[in-house]
Amino acid sequence: MPQTDQSHDPTLGSWVDAANGHPDFPIQNLPLGVFSPPKGADNGAPRVGVAIGDSILDLTAIAGLFTGEAARAVEAAGEGRLNGLFALGAGPRRALRARLSELLAEGSAEQATLEPALHPAASCTLHLPARIGDYTDFYVGIHHATNVGKVFRPDNPLLPNYKYVPIGYHGRASSVVPSGTPIRRPNGQRPRPEGGPSFGPCERLDYELELGVWVGPGNDLGTPIPITEAAEHIAGFCLLNDWSARDLQAWEYQPLGPFLAKNFGSTISPWVITPEALAPFRAAQPPRPEGDPQPLPYLLDEADQAGGALALELEVLLSTPGLRERGLPPHRLSLSDARHMYWTVAQMVAHHSCGGCNLQPGDLLGTGTLSAPGSEGFGSLLETTAGGKQPVRLASGEERRFLQDGDEVILRARARRDGFAPIGFGECRGTILPAP
Amino acid sequence: MPQTDQSHDPTLGSWVDAANGHPDFPIQNLPLGVFSPPKGADNGAPRVGVAIGDSILDLTAIAGLFTGEAARAVEAAGEGRLNGLFALGAGPRRALRARLSELLAEGSAEQATLEPALHPAASCTLHLPARIGDYTDFYVGIHHATNVGKVFRPDNPLLPNYKYVPIGYHGRASSVVPSGTPIRRPNGQRPRPEGGPSFGPCERLDYELELGVWVGPGNDLGTPIPITEAAEHIAGFCLLNDWSARDLQAWEYQPLGPFLAKNFGSTISPWVITPEALAPFRAAQPPRPEGDPQPLPYLLDEADQAGGALALELEVLLSTPGLRERGLPPHRLSLSDARHMYWTVAQMVAHHSCGGCNLQPGDLLGTGTLSAPGSEGFGSLLETTAGGKQPVRLASGEERRFLQDGDEVILRARARRDGFAPIGFGECRGTILPAP
Repeated sequence: MPQTDQSHDPTLGSWVDAANGHPDFPIQNLPLGVFSPPKGADNGAPRVGVAIGDSILDLTAIAGLFTGEAARAVEAAGEGRLNGLFALGAGPRRALRARLSELLAEGSAEQATLEPALHPAASCTLHLPARIGDYTDFYVGIHHATNVGKVFRPDNPLLPNYKYVPIGYHGRASSVVPSGTPIRRPNGQRPRPEGGPSFGPCERLDYELELGVWVGPGNDLGTPIPITEAAEHIAGFCLLNDWSARDLQAWEYQPLGPFLAKNFGSTISPWVITPEALAPFRAAQPPRPEGDPQPLPYLLDEADQAGGALALELEVLLSTPGLRERGLPPHRLSLSDARHMYWTVAQMVAHHSCGGCNLQPGDLLGTGTLSAPGSEGFGSLLETTAGGKQPVRLASGEERRFLQDGDEVILRARARRDGFAPIGFGECRGTILPAP
Repeated sequence: MPQTDQSHDPTLGSWVDAANGHPDFPIQNLPLGVFSPPKGADNGAPRVGVAIGDSILDLTAIAGLFTGEAARAVEAAGEGRLNGLFALGAGPRRALRARLSELLAEGSAEQATLEPALHPAASCTLHLPARIGDYTDFYVGIHHATNVGKVFRPDNPLLPNYKYVPIGYHGRASSVVPSGTPIRRPNGQRPRPEGGPSFGPCERLDYELELGVWVGPGNDLGTPIPITEAAEHIAGFCLLNDWSARDLQAWEYQPLGPFLAKNFGSTISPWVITPEALAPFRAAQPPRPEGDPQPLPYLLDEADQAGGALALELEVLLSTPGLRERGLPPHRLSLSDARHMYWTVAQMVAHHSCGGCNLQPGDLLGTGTLSAPGSEGFGSLLETTAGGKQPVRLASGEERRFLQDGDEVILRARARRDGFAPIGFGECRGTILPAP
């Protein structure tokens, strides 16, 4: 059973009217982020805030309302990024959530004190929530791994290590950007049919639908995190678009993996959805198909098997210049679910550190592309269009094999469960600019 | 011709006696680093210093002796790490070198002022010189790439992309440690002959001989660095031991590249050898073998072809418990040279950024293993012992196929050229501890 408390009560309302029934940020969510208010207010310096409805509550401005563990969290937030708060672990974060739930609830005695610290989200700029030390991308979406593997090995799409190793690789931290940052189409070496490469703009630009995971306290170099303790090192979740240049990738990736095909930009949703907010939406890890090996002992934990998965609907929308000109809504490219992970996030953490690699507060882990089994739930155009062979047709009359300049990709995530208020992640958006 | 000035004059001596004839740090070198003096002195807080002979000069303590561009460099050094100084680019770094050369020269009027700021290196702790934002490892050592490729493809060891793409991949920044930090043998999934993995201590632990490159000013996301400007973004060099778990690597690395096989620790030498110190040792990039393609235009620059290579002798020594017990000196495993790079450092920088990926001050690039063509110059045990088949025999009677607990690997680099004072990099050392 998920661990929930009164902060999850679906009947709880907020005096911030727009929060009540808000698809992403009702009072049951309370995600953390870093924002700048409009320049007028306090010179626009980045500070930590909480999303509530269509507003952002400036945590530091109301620091006096917290005591004990919650006050420790608010003090750490004073540095204008979440690394310090992540480092504190679950205790202060939980205390902060409990107190925020009281303060923002209907009938709160502190409403008048809080109102001046509340900014309309539309007038604020959202930043990366933490300084990302290292970014690691995994490959735990088994349907994606299977789909991609089929391109190279139709009869045997998954490599022999896939069901033993939570496959991952190091990504580029410097080019992770918050939602809304335009993404410039990369130049690079593209393979030519006649052999050898040509240099120029990527011609097979793609998106990838992923979840991002924020690392909490972390571990010292040489001291692995046991699977039983891994959950304590997960500070929160976001959406992640791992933009991918498929032509560059095909040419460059042997023998050491993707490099320029991925490092020109990765977009994340700016709000950190806490493990506490997601507690009602934990699910059992789906049983492994018959014949699959059991996880090795260092990856096996009963509690993780019982509740380490997340029931989370994931959606990808595409807005094109043609759709926008005609006033047409974005086209849904995919509807998937976070349950399509062969490995849990705790298994990712335990594996990453099992050889002693040190994880640090604010490190970012990506799950890899989370495709559903059917084509309407594929998490990349590489899969949806079968490598560009079957174009997506849009209501504007346009078609897409890969992304064109001016296209905008929007990722969304929603958690729903009977008896609980649904919560969302907010959007993860990016628009493609022409190559330089 | 290399650009040299009076700071390279081989007849120049220092009033720091031990600097004269010092194999690594004569007055012609003047490398930068971050150190803590013994606790007694100023509470041991890390600060920027310059190595001179067997001493370290505390830059911040003598800040009053600098003006203009050099003063900007010293001010940036005040933050106790070199990121800010790297960000300033070549001008302030050159001015700093020129002034340090005057101050430390025999007959300097400032000797008495400087002496209190001089600490015996042996009593100091050396730290990482900069906060490493991202670490990227390349694969430009063509003999290494050929040797490793032969294991998998005896007839065609180099993949088709090798001579077009400076192959690289993202490494782990958090586990880069300074020389002298012990390295704990990682646990991990090892392939079994009967199929599937077992979990336990790495049984094929190896070192890799590399050069490290410190990034200077860097570029904004989406704005590539042209090859003609790449040299301006190189702030310095170090030695890099890319410790590698070969059994873990063989099992995990498909399809996304090395991960746990490399991220349990990477050791660097702590002194930043500046491009200015290395100016006399620049060399023409060796002509490509007949039939090799020309570099694509974005990787081609006449000045880089004429002087973008480094003539730098690289040495690997192994000290084992058996050698130490018998009072025997370390065994030389390899004598190689930095000229065995198929791509120059400028080409690495231009390629890394050509798709728009942003490099930042303090990022670290590795060259990849720099093996010489012959077995006495191979830069890893994988190559030297032919994958463990031909053990190295030591004077102690021990033999090594891969590294054992208690083994210490020592990397050294020396630049020599007629008419110039030789300089060295200092050591890059690490000792293997047992798995946890």
